[in-house]
Amino acid sequence: MRIALDAMGGDFAPEAVVKGAILAAQQLEQEDVILLIGKEDIVQSLLNEYGYSGNNIQVVHASQVIEMGEHPTKALSQKTDSSIAVGYGLLKMQKADAFCSAGNTGAMLVGAMFSVKAIEGILRPSIGGLVPKVNGGYGIMLDVGANADCKPEVLEQFGEIGSIYAKYVLEIPNPKVGLMNLGEEEGKGTVVTQAAHQRLKTNSSINFIGNIEGRDLFNDKADVIVCDGYTGNIILKMAENIYDILNEKNMHDPFIDKFNYEAVGGSPILGINGNAVIGHGVSSPKAISNMVLQAQKMVASKLSERFRKNYSE
Amino acid sequence: MRIALDAMGGDFAPEAVVKGAILAAQQLEQEDVILLIGKEDIVQSLLNEYGYSGNNIQVVHASQVIEMGEHPTKALSQKTDSSIAVGYGLLKMQKADAFCSAGNTGAMLVGAMFSVKAIEGILRPSIGGLVPKVNGGYGIMLDVGANADCKPEVLEQFGEIGSIYAKYVLEIPNPKVGLMNLGEEEGKGTVVTQAAHQRLKTNSSINFIGNIEGRDLFNDKADVIVCDGYTGNIILKMAENIYDILNEKNMHDPFIDKFNYEAVGGSPILGINGNAVIGHGVSSPKAISNMVLQAQKMVASKLSERFRKNYSE
Repeated sequence: MRIALDAMGGDFAPEAVVKGAILAAQQLEQEDVILLIGKEDIVQSLLNEYGYSGNNIQVVHASQVIEMGEHPTKALSQKTDSSIAVGYGLLKMQKADAFCSAGNTGAMLVGAMFSVKAIEGILRPSIGGLVPKVNGGYGIMLDVGANADCKPEVLEQFGEIGSIYAKYVLEIPNPKVGLMNLGEEEGKGTVVTQAAHQRLKTNSSINFIGNIEGRDLFNDKADVIVCDGYTGNIILKMAENIYDILNEKNMHDPFIDKFNYEAVGGSPILGINGNAVIGHGVSSPKAISNMVLQAQKMVASKLSERFRKNYSE
Repeated sequence: MRIALDAMGGDFAPEAVVKGAILAAQQLEQEDVILLIGKEDIVQSLLNEYGYSGNNIQVVHASQVIEMGEHPTKALSQKTDSSIAVGYGLLKMQKADAFCSAGNTGAMLVGAMFSVKAIEGILRPSIGGLVPKVNGGYGIMLDVGANADCKPEVLEQFGEIGSIYAKYVLEIPNPKVGLMNLGEEEGKGTVVTQAAHQRLKTNSSINFIGNIEGRDLFNDKADVIVCDGYTGNIILKMAENIYDILNEKNMHDPFIDKFNYEAVGGSPILGINGNAVIGHGVSSPKAISNMVLQAQKMVASKLSERFRKNYSE
């Protein structure tokens, strides 16, 4: 498989990305290739500097860079040879099976919608957040930021999309779907979550277990956690911050350390024609490497094709 | 001052409550009195059993108990001699300056609305959650569960109410108000938070510092955290759960230990004609004691009167 990686994306790019690509290359299959997209001379000289001599990394030239603070739509339309635009171009032409970037999150989202586009039948592509579980493994929470407001039917579909992700990428048979809410009883919650509850309950394609609460995030009640992007984003950033606080206090634990963004490397964009992963702006080489390995898993499990089959055929 | 306390409320009542009342009595001023409401023979015999011989605790008889699972409105209308009904009766008649209970949360909220009622000018009474700060002290987050959906003008008023609480109970001069959101930029968020941002920004009675994110909950950016009850409830329960997980792993730290519900004892109902605090269902004696001491602070700072002055005069 071929995984495109934005060499210019993130606060510590290109150095951290090139280092991360080398780390990931050591763990990929022999036939897998990382397409490292960026200014060719800079990227190639870093590969030389770090002593990379394998043949799992190929450099793809892109003359422009979309900076972290730029307006996504404007930047994408003006910088057609930027690493993000080139990456999505490769994905669209199926010259890459996945595209990863720790760059401008908005540009990654907008780029997906403009190039590979949402899968027909998907109401709103979303960003998934991997949630570590106390008893081991991960769950998937969606949305974590692409859609602040979500209609009940969108939340219902998040339950389906998350179930497909959990089944094939996380390899959880019959994943349990929980609706994040302020109480367990089905009448609880906002007008939207109350309506979503009724839809999820009668959806026979998923294993809906009802409402879950903030205290259930890390336990085994649900493998798929459904919420709007406003709520998911707050939860995700709060968890990351608690990791930072404990890390600063030198309090470490294998479970808590999984709150660190480095552990999973990035958040998948779900529901588009292709596999894309968005990394954290401050991504370290380890985070970049884990982002690439996450993309590998998505490709290997044929995630995007499964969504397409489920919704468009 | 006279603080009414529901002896029959909570999973470990009446034993834990009577023990908690004795703990609190040791820390109150000499002239302060706890009105312990419940079945007189049971409560009095527990006071004897635990060897209480002071005169800061008076038993007030209530023949009925609203159980944890009962429907609030129905239970309150049928059990007019329940400890919660009697407690609010004392508050309404100003025979008590505050009322605390670790019993049925719904009955505590409904009881407040039926008896002392919302202060005129208050759009929606809310429940405040105390949020520990990494650098010490507490902030106040509202709402944490009374109002799942909130209109922009309600969120704006939460900013005002929280500021009054922070100023007089937490003794923070010119408290900073932050709107919980998924990004710092003012255009970010749900339709409601976007509209609330504009209202908060132009409200000259508060010190609005803009949007805050999930990662800012525990830092010093904001002393007053404004959000709807759905979001606040999820945040609060998630924090409690992280304390439980760390506690089980025997990982302790003075900051993290403040996530424990015991540390603050309960959540104040804000915006009603009187001071009321709702305790956690599983309240221990220590939690009960801290709930009473929190009520004492609210009374001492004339919280309810200040709300009334601000909105009704």
